[in-house]
Amino acid sequence: MNQVKLRLLVEQFFIEDIGEQDVTTSSIFEADTKGEMVFLAKEAGVFCGEDIVSCGFQLLDPDIEVQLLVKDGDAISKGQQLAKISGKVAALLTGERVVLNLIQRMSGIATLTKRAVEKLNNPHTRICDTRKTTPGLRMLEKYAVHCGGGYNHRYGLYDGVMIKDNHIAFAGSITKAVVNVREKVGHMVKIEVETETKAQVIEAVEAGADVIMFDNRTPEEIDQFLQLVPEHIITEASGGITLDNLSDYEQSKVDYISLGFLTHAYRALDISAKVMIEGEI
Amino acid sequence: MNQVKLRLLVEQFFIEDIGEQDVTTSSIFEADTKGEMVFLAKEAGVFCGEDIVSCGFQLLDPDIEVQLLVKDGDAISKGQQLAKISGKVAALLTGERVVLNLIQRMSGIATLTKRAVEKLNNPHTRICDTRKTTPGLRMLEKYAVHCGGGYNHRYGLYDGVMIKDNHIAFAGSITKAVVNVREKVGHMVKIEVETETKAQVIEAVEAGADVIMFDNRTPEEIDQFLQLVPEHIITEASGGITLDNLSDYEQSKVDYISLGFLTHAYRALDISAKVMIEGEI
Amino acid sequence: MNQVKLRLLVEQFFIEDIGEQDVTTSSIFEADTKGEMVFLAKEAGVFCGEDIVSCGFQLLDPDIEVQLLVKDGDAISKGQQLAKISGKVAALLTGERVVLNLIQRMSGIATLTKRAVEKLNNPHTRICDTRKTTPGLRMLEKYAVHCGGGYNHRYGLYDGVMIKDNHIAFAGSITKAVVNVREKVGHMVKIEVETETKAQVIEAVEAGADVIMFDNRTPEEIDQFLQLVPEHIITEASGGITLDNLSDYEQSKVDYISLGFLTHAYRALDISAKVMIEGEI
Amino acid sequence: MNQVKLRLLVEQFFIEDIGEQDVTTSSIFEADTKGEMVFLAKEAGVFCGEDIVSCGFQLLDPDIEVQLLVKDGDAISKGQQLAKISGKVAALLTGERVVLNLIQRMSGIATLTKRAVEKLNNPHTRICDTRKTTPGLRMLEKYAVHCGGGYNHRYGLYDGVMIKDNHIAFAGSITKAVVNVREKVGHMVKIEVETETKAQVIEAVEAGADVIMFDNRTPEEIDQFLQLVPEHIITEASGGITLDNLSDYEQSKVDYISLGFLTHAYRALDISAKVMIEGEI
Amino acid sequence: MNQVKLRLLVEQFFIEDIGEQDVTTSSIFEADTKGEMVFLAKEAGVFCGEDIVSCGFQLLDPDIEVQLLVKDGDAISKGQQLAKISGKVAALLTGERVVLNLIQRMSGIATLTKRAVEKLNNPHTRICDTRKTTPGLRMLEKYAVHCGGGYNHRYGLYDGVMIKDNHIAFAGSITKAVVNVREKVGHMVKIEVETETKAQVIEAVEAGADVIMFDNRTPEEIDQFLQLVPEHIITEASGGITLDNLSDYEQSKVDYISLGFLTHAYRALDISAKVMIEGEI
Amino acid sequence: MNQVKLRLLVEQFFIEDIGEQDVTTSSIFEADTKGEMVFLAKEAGVFCGEDIVSCGFQLLDPDIEVQLLVKDGDAISKGQQLAKISGKVAALLTGERVVLNLIQRMSGIATLTKRAVEKLNNPHTRICDTRKTTPGLRMLEKYAVHCGGGYNHRYGLYDGVMIKDNHIAFAGSITKAVVNVREKVGHMVKIEVETETKAQVIEAVEAGADVIMFDNRTPEEIDQFLQLVPEHIITEASGGITLDNLSDYEQSKVDYISLGFLTHAYRALDISAKVMIEGEI
Repeated sequence: MNQVKLRLLVEQFFIEDIGEQDVTTSSIFEADTKGEMVFLAKEAGVFCGEDIVSCGFQLLDPDIEVQLLVKDGDAISKGQQLAKISGKVAALLTGERVVLNLIQRMSGIATLTKRAVEKLNNPHTRICDTRKTTPGLRMLEKYAVHCGGGYNHRYGLYDGVMIKDNHIAFAGSITKAVVNVREKVGHMVKIEVETETKAQVIEAVEAGADVIMFDNRTPEEIDQFLQLVPEHIITEASGGITLDNLSDYEQSKVDYISLGFLTHAYRALDISAKVMIEGEI
Repeated sequence: MNQVKLRLLVEQFFIEDIGEQDVTTSSIFEADTKGEMVFLAKEAGVFCGEDIVSCGFQLLDPDIEVQLLVKDGDAISKGQQLAKISGKVAALLTGERVVLNLIQRMSGIATLTKRAVEKLNNPHTRICDTRKTTPGLRMLEKYAVHCGGGYNHRYGLYDGVMIKDNHIAFAGSITKAVVNVREKVGHMVKIEVETETKAQVIEAVEAGADVIMFDNRTPEEIDQFLQLVPEHIITEASGGITLDNLSDYEQSKVDYISLGFLTHAYRALDISAKVMIEGEI
Repeated sequence: MNQVKLRLLVEQFFIEDIGEQDVTTSSIFEADTKGEMVFLAKEAGVFCGEDIVSCGFQLLDPDIEVQLLVKDGDAISKGQQLAKISGKVAALLTGERVVLNLIQRMSGIATLTKRAVEKLNNPHTRICDTRKTTPGLRMLEKYAVHCGGGYNHRYGLYDGVMIKDNHIAFAGSITKAVVNVREKVGHMVKIEVETETKAQVIEAVEAGADVIMFDNRTPEEIDQFLQLVPEHIITEASGGITLDNLSDYEQSKVDYISLGFLTHAYRALDISAKVMIEGEI
Repeated sequence: MNQVKLRLLVEQFFIEDIGEQDVTTSSIFEADTKGEMVFLAKEAGVFCGEDIVSCGFQLLDPDIEVQLLVKDGDAISKGQQLAKISGKVAALLTGERVVLNLIQRMSGIATLTKRAVEKLNNPHTRICDTRKTTPGLRMLEKYAVHCGGGYNHRYGLYDGVMIKDNHIAFAGSITKAVVNVREKVGHMVKIEVETETKAQVIEAVEAGADVIMFDNRTPEEIDQFLQLVPEHIITEASGGITLDNLSDYEQSKVDYISLGFLTHAYRALDISAKVMIEGEI
Repeated sequence: MNQVKLRLLVEQFFIEDIGEQDVTTSSIFEADTKGEMVFLAKEAGVFCGEDIVSCGFQLLDPDIEVQLLVKDGDAISKGQQLAKISGKVAALLTGERVVLNLIQRMSGIATLTKRAVEKLNNPHTRICDTRKTTPGLRMLEKYAVHCGGGYNHRYGLYDGVMIKDNHIAFAGSITKAVVNVREKVGHMVKIEVETETKAQVIEAVEAGADVIMFDNRTPEEIDQFLQLVPEHIITEASGGITLDNLSDYEQSKVDYISLGFLTHAYRALDISAKVMIEGEI
Repeated sequence: MNQVKLRLLVEQFFIEDIGEQDVTTSSIFEADTKGEMVFLAKEAGVFCGEDIVSCGFQLLDPDIEVQLLVKDGDAISKGQQLAKISGKVAALLTGERVVLNLIQRMSGIATLTKRAVEKLNNPHTRICDTRKTTPGLRMLEKYAVHCGGGYNHRYGLYDGVMIKDNHIAFAGSITKAVVNVREKVGHMVKIEVETETKAQVIEAVEAGADVIMFDNRTPEEIDQFLQLVPEHIITEASGGITLDNLSDYEQSKVDYISLGFLTHAYRALDISAKVMIEGEI
């Protein structure tokens, strides 16, 4: 991740939560009371968020020391210690929630991605994400998908062409749309075409798509469509695929399965913070 | 919601998704092709996001016209039309994803909140949210809880005091913590104390807490604790409460039940966009 | 104060004053000439601004060393040394004005607040501020009121309800306004009602206000109004109270007196900076 | 004033005051209730803030209509109507405080400046401001000095050279400092030198200063110093000049008198807002 | 281009140039004097900058009317009128320089690109840009290359993989580098490999590069290298190619030639603004 | 240069180039691989950019060490080492392009300025820049002109008055324009008047201009015009002056020659980065 962007993001998140001051902490504690905080996994999963923990507390107090006990992508078990943070108690307690809110979400996505990969159980086919991410958090969420063993689809509207049904309707045909685009974009941009029928797949192949997506098709339809696609074109299945039916694709030869739910229907992983007073440590 | 803040947020979200340009749309369409986009509910739920739809597309093109067909908090059914947006096709397609990403999430939260209120089915007890919101989206998510029939707990560390176990441990006792805080904060700030035992509840009452929270207690324990609290002090149950066990609190006399999952384990409501070419409309 | 927010504020203030460069300093001095600057009180008062001094110069040059000789809230006398800052002369002279502009204002507010507290000389009644602060400086000015022995009223429109004459006029009555609000806000938000007559005070009490403000009332009227308010409701006097007539409230039993002039009619405390060349020190 | 900069500033000030929402207004009013607000002078003075009123409310609601009844620099009397603003009541009440906080301060400075000009009563000598402005508000405060009949000294460290005692001490002499600066800066930058003795004035003249400032000198000393300065060099008196002793300079031939108190010890002018319900208007 | 990003950029550019105010214009003109400004080409070239002209003046005054007389990519001749802008004279003169500074640069790049395309005179080979753009202006400069008939290489480090000599040195070999990358990136990211020898070209082909770049090779070497590359892999020549030697590639079969000088050694096209007083128009 | 502003600028430039991540570097390298990068001049010129190199890499990784081998304004020769940067290879490669893009441009301007000074070869006359700088980079580009031996004209519309033909046309005459301005601006602002005829020069002198500019005049005309200007008024030649005809002004007595091409038609100086693996160093 871009460390400059990360820092600016986390600064904004602290401003959102702390506002002018943490009225609780600033009223109770002397400025120089020190202590240690431990992050604990309350359930098993995949950890994601090293940079958040390191960068976050430092922004509140440069003297805080962070010791990470796991790495991004590590499987973690219930009760496992994830990080130790020591320094002024006020800064530890003030920063706790924002850091937890981020790493719980990122670990939630990494955990869900890993589960999807395991359910699929198909060494040929890669799981990937979509643009259905939380506004403002795309960098973090896509990184979390990567840490869970998934792959990143395009990052935004700027780094890849995706010709969907609406585009095709307006352009008149897949062929025209691809020709228009190919005429204008450079050689580092891939062109993906969304298809729903055999005729569309054939047209996309002939138009010179780099990637062909099969939208809302059954595993059987996908197998048939794959026959129509030469090897150098990448294929992707999308739409209607859930954790429950992922295993139907265990034998599939499709290259990618994209799953919107990885980033729009995940559950934050339960991680908690426990503070210990100096001396007790 | 603060309209100035909302606009600045949505601008950032568009910059995240669009980057320098929408390579697909700008390659396929003439700048002046016009059309209409309809937002459709793909499942039943509670709608939330009027301001997002109005403000969002206008930022991309001030000539776009938005017609909202539902209001925040309205129950919507599968297949229902939610809004019509008309103007340049390129702007409609470029703006679609960010707007959907936001209103799907907000409607997801509103829907989940309403479901929690209905499960609880207790006219005395209010459902409220927590600070376990998505960093960067707190204003939007808390507003969505409100639209779903829930109530907002404090917005951040700045607008309410919450004395938790960690604070108590450091301060030495609930009494000392409350006294310290009361000495320093003004009269518009409420003080909530987290308790786990009868002794703590009694101490919190005597220390003069404005709100007493029962952390991770069973409905029965809560009933007992409530006996110890005079009427002018507000009570809140929190921790370990899920959609599945909410009905156990149907007869409870606790004033508030706070649910972290409303904002950290919701699922985006399925809403889609369908574009129609002018003339077809 | 929120250290992240503070740093971003001070960065903007330096950009306002320095612009592209300090043409004087950069033309006269070699980059590596070092020296020491001392901040001196030119008049007696209450100091406020520790964080400004520490954070400010560090932003211009991380190698600058700051030694604070007083703490926020300390009474200071004419001629007293407040801080020593040592490092590159260019950075010392470039940063001086912004830092002084801030700590002079904050110390001016703290000094005025302390004077108000002393004039009032009433152990029961607390002095508090209002929202009549300088746009952009609210965090700093409210902190200064706190350091002078005052209390903070709500921070903004977001962290407390204040039902004023205009709101009442529109709502139809105090009762309707309070009922509307109570129906919508959560349990961490206090509701204050502004009153001018006995009838309004009685209505506010019955409507369930948390705080009742007596607007522009004489000390005698306030005494009468207080008879109507049960003990658990907090009372506040506001409007028309000046340093000159504060002592009229010495025996008052009102809980708070809010003073707009603390932040809109204060005078900056006179503090100056004197630089010494290395070797001379 | 730079309208782009002004808008970005006012946006930040609204975010500071409104935060996520105006809990009072949003709880009491329907979104479409309309009304009118009138700004009234509660005391006589000089008005300043046209652009704030126009730009401010528009940011909250583009449909609000603003009718200004006075111009910047106009003398206003107690009770005079300054502006009418009509539109949604919620937006009027939400925006009121920030707009008032700004125009009260700007009008306070304009009023104080005009009073200083009148006290001085010297057609030869101009009153000007200093860099002792409120951080973040310099553009607004310097504009207010201008509207009150004063003149602007340099805006910051970037648009003029000011060689003060500290600079002279380091450079070794006025001559060396001026030579160093003249060697490096371009022809659009003026060089001002601070002097306290006749010898310094003579040295500054010979070194080629564009402006010579007499620091903390009596009117008599200033008269003597002026004999030493050729006509093409501009002169400025500064330090220790107050409203009370300004009339001592009524006959002075000094070109400028700079007054720090115009921006660091002013009092906000009392302006209030009164809202009327539609129909009543 | 992303219109939201464009507006935020131009706002920053106006703040850079105008600062607190345009002292010249605000001193000379009454606020309501109106006039018309015409943009004239002082030399022939390719125009680029429609959005800048439209968006720029509107930011200073929403009542300004802009009439564009040319489109992006149009060839323009010396003396040709490019746009008419009418409204308040002060806003026209204040905004002129920033708008000119941008459209002169963009038109300069478009003109240079078109000249490169014409010099090359090779229907097979496309001219493209690099990341050697002016920091802060990449969106505008890459758009200008497009308007001049060129193509955009990757936009940044985020939207395409480029394996250069330094990467290869560290990875150990091209093969290892490509394998590492392919293992981690998704299917929308293209992988380009920089090569200098036949052996490297062969290795890049076998490693599965999507694009192969010939770095600093003569036209003859490029012809030889092209023999080694199968048709589905895109080829690019880069390094040491200037306007003077571009015609050496007229017969080349390489797919792309990337030219750093398009954005780091261009000359602004000469465009001037002429203002006319109302009545004269 | 203002170090706070510089840092905020470079942060934005890194965000522009890196986006969410450097996909190449993050895919190939382990996070802890270290190495050293050397910046080498590929051609002779004048170096400018010390602060960029120091500040830039530190933003990506605070542990990176930068050793500068030249100073701003130093003449550098082809092949000369300019700086050594050591630390994590990933950060070195990720930061390289932005830093190079900046220092190449700044060194290009410094080099061109020095060449202009040498071509002019006139100890009396100073070369200066204009406002025709790259939007967003004015601070950096004007600093580069200074490092090349040139002088800075006004920084923007805020720090100097320039009365041009358009202003004169509207005001009615030079005299009226100067009178209007002098009436309103303070004593630190210089007033420059653009002239094209002897009559205009005479009028500007009598109106009391501080600086008189001769627009688009031949060296001979300038000599004649200079006769009309008393010594205390500064003179400037501008328009139509190029590197090729600069030597025509070798004997001129004009004080300044302003050259727009220094910042709108420069070529980036060729500087490259070479990375070495640890151990090899």
